[in-house]
Amino acid sequence: MGKWPLSEPMREALALARRAAEAGEVPVGAVVVKGGAIVGRGHNRPRQAHDPTAHAEIEAIRAAARALGNERLEGCDLWVTLEPCVMCAGAIAHARIARLYYAASDRKGGAVEHGARVFDQPQTLHRPEVYSGMGEEDAAKLLRRFFKERR
Amino acid sequence: MGKWPLSEPMREALALARRAAEAGEVPVGAVVVKGGAIVGRGHNRPRQAHDPTAHAEIEAIRAAARALGNERLEGCDLWVTLEPCVMCAGAIAHARIARLYYAASDRKGGAVEHGARVFDQPQTLHRPEVYSGMGEEDAAKLLRRFFKERR
Repeated sequence: MGKWPLSEPMREALALARRAAEAGEVPVGAVVVKGGAIVGRGHNRPRQAHDPTAHAEIEAIRAAARALGNERLEGCDLWVTLEPCVMCAGAIAHARIARLYYAASDRKGGAVEHGARVFDQPQTLHRPEVYSGMGEEDAAKLLRRFFKERR
Repeated sequence: MGKWPLSEPMREALALARRAAEAGEVPVGAVVVKGGAIVGRGHNRPRQAHDPTAHAEIEAIRAAARALGNERLEGCDLWVTLEPCVMCAGAIAHARIARLYYAASDRKGGAVEHGARVFDQPQTLHRPEVYSGMGEEDAAKLLRRFFKERR
């Protein structure tokens, strides 16, 4: 039985995660999509960039906002290979991302279905629709391999 | 009776908040201090920068990490005029900020003593020491004036 094929944005996010791993960074990748087109790409690169905020989601959101000339990404979707952390979930809310798709969940650092559960906080003014699980196996495998090689 | 004089970093953060207001941005300013010297400055500027992540804290942290050539700001303190939001609190934890000083608290958007209370989450691996209140009056006055003029 064949696997259901992954959507184009998640395949691109996984390719970006692989690029992060090649650069020695924790393999997480993300893209922002508007009207079917990718308008922002990013991968995790805090070490390379000397920037603790350079997570895949932040990089993709900043690239998309720059490309669209607007700090509000209305009507845009974010695809990312790992459940966003508290910082990235906050950025997703500030950016007004319409739909969030993430592959693997992250019990230790995720803040969507774990920890601070940012989008469930009454304080959070913008909540994206959230979908998870597609690409999970590929995304988790990349992370496992990365940490195994570094042990 | 005279007011207790504000420390130099908080005076600089307030000056940066005023600069934000002059540029039409919500007046919040921040500095990162290491060994008594300011190593990063930032003010709120999401509109100008077309960047939803361009809060004062993120700008100051990014500037400091760039200046120090390290994504971990060990031994650095962050001074900011307003209680950090969930995104910025996450960034503060990622950056390993040692001490956080903020002026005004923010019931609506703050995530230190309100909302997600990021540093109280068991998931958060790094917690700064937190001090608040110094400069509160000045910081809150700047924000009130800004929003009043825009109503």
